[in-house]
Amino acid sequence: MQQRARATRESILAGAAAVFEKQGYETASLARVAEAASVTKGALYFHFRSKEELARAVIAAQHALGVERSAAILAEGRPALETMILMSRGFGQDTLNEPMVRAGIRLTFEASAFGQDVAGPYQHWVEGLEALTRAAREEGWLHAGVDSGSFAHVLVASVTGVQMVSNVLTGRRDLMERIEEMWAALLPGILAKEHLHEGPRLVRLIRETPDE
Amino acid sequence: MQQRARATRESILAGAAAVFEKQGYETASLARVAEAASVTKGALYFHFRSKEELARAVIAAQHALGVERSAAILAEGRPALETMILMSRGFGQDTLNEPMVRAGIRLTFEASAFGQDVAGPYQHWVEGLEALTRAAREEGWLHAGVDSGSFAHVLVASVTGVQMVSNVLTGRRDLMERIEEMWAALLPGILAKEHLHEGPRLVRLIRETPDE
Repeated sequence: MQQRARATRESILAGAAAVFEKQGYETASLARVAEAASVTKGALYFHFRSKEELARAVIAAQHALGVERSAAILAEGRPALETMILMSRGFGQDTLNEPMVRAGIRLTFEASAFGQDVAGPYQHWVEGLEALTRAAREEGWLHAGVDSGSFAHVLVASVTGVQMVSNVLTGRRDLMERIEEMWAALLPGILAKEHLHEGPRLVRLIRETPDE
Repeated sequence: MQQRARATRESILAGAAAVFEKQGYETASLARVAEAASVTKGALYFHFRSKEELARAVIAAQHALGVERSAAILAEGRPALETMILMSRGFGQDTLNEPMVRAGIRLTFEASAFGQDVAGPYQHWVEGLEALTRAAREEGWLHAGVDSGSFAHVLVASVTGVQMVSNVLTGRRDLMERIEEMWAALLPGILAKEHLHEGPRLVRLIRETPDE
């Protein structure tokens, strides 16, 4: 019984992702979501009382997906800098493959439309990347002048911007290439002298790492 | 007569910027814009036949504002790299001070909601910054390995992302500081060896250049 409720909830979230991604928050309706999820409006209301609650759940599901993906990459036990690079790659791939991620992004930037505080996930990414930047410095990959807080901020902003601009210019067709280009621009400014020659190999990780 | 028509058009655009910035494309109505601009609905329809036409005019006005600002900076005749830094500073200041810019940004990223091709202004910025990057390299400020097309793309994406994330995290309160931080991260990777020591001075330009 509980399992069936969970399956219904997941169908609703998938339907909501499809509708929010395509129509945005304002135009989306609960009726349209129920239809996309093939559930009755009654079933939908049992799980989500309002469009706002549903939008919040989509943003939370997007964040959970990103966290899960990052945990899998962390578990590979690579150097922290490689982990960061592969996390940005994972974000790019999930943006291309997962409607939940694209819907979450759209909702986050429409947030003022529905008055929700959406800073949480971004704050979480900044903090996680700050810790990884610190680790990468301690592992000797970054030079001493790299400020972990600043670099984490720049990285979150750059990945966000690369995604937005790739969407505007090419409908995200060049997204993975642009993530490589971003790292190619950032690495020479942060790598420790003795690792500078590894920049090109690190960028190639994005293209060459097998999908799990 | 023509002058009065132009003044009315500008009032309408200012009203539209205020309404689009606050409500987004879907929720905004022409009635609400007419009210914000203190014009009759008849006068509004005389200038703009539809909400889509009005939104397009706001994006065009935002772009014109950015181009005008950049032309003024170019006219100062500084080295190309300083020009690029001050152009990103101008974008930040205009985002903070001009509702037209904030409305244009919001509409651009809601574009899929109203099916308009909004790549034009972004393409324009990428091309302009590519030419400036090439000039900065020819002037000896950038090392030979900097690819002008790549760097222009990364810069447009970074400025876009810095703005989006600053909005989500602090309502843009830290925007100018984040633009400094972005340049502090980018410059060490692009400066020619003999200009590397000038990185901090270049970043300080953002804070210390007097407003025109």
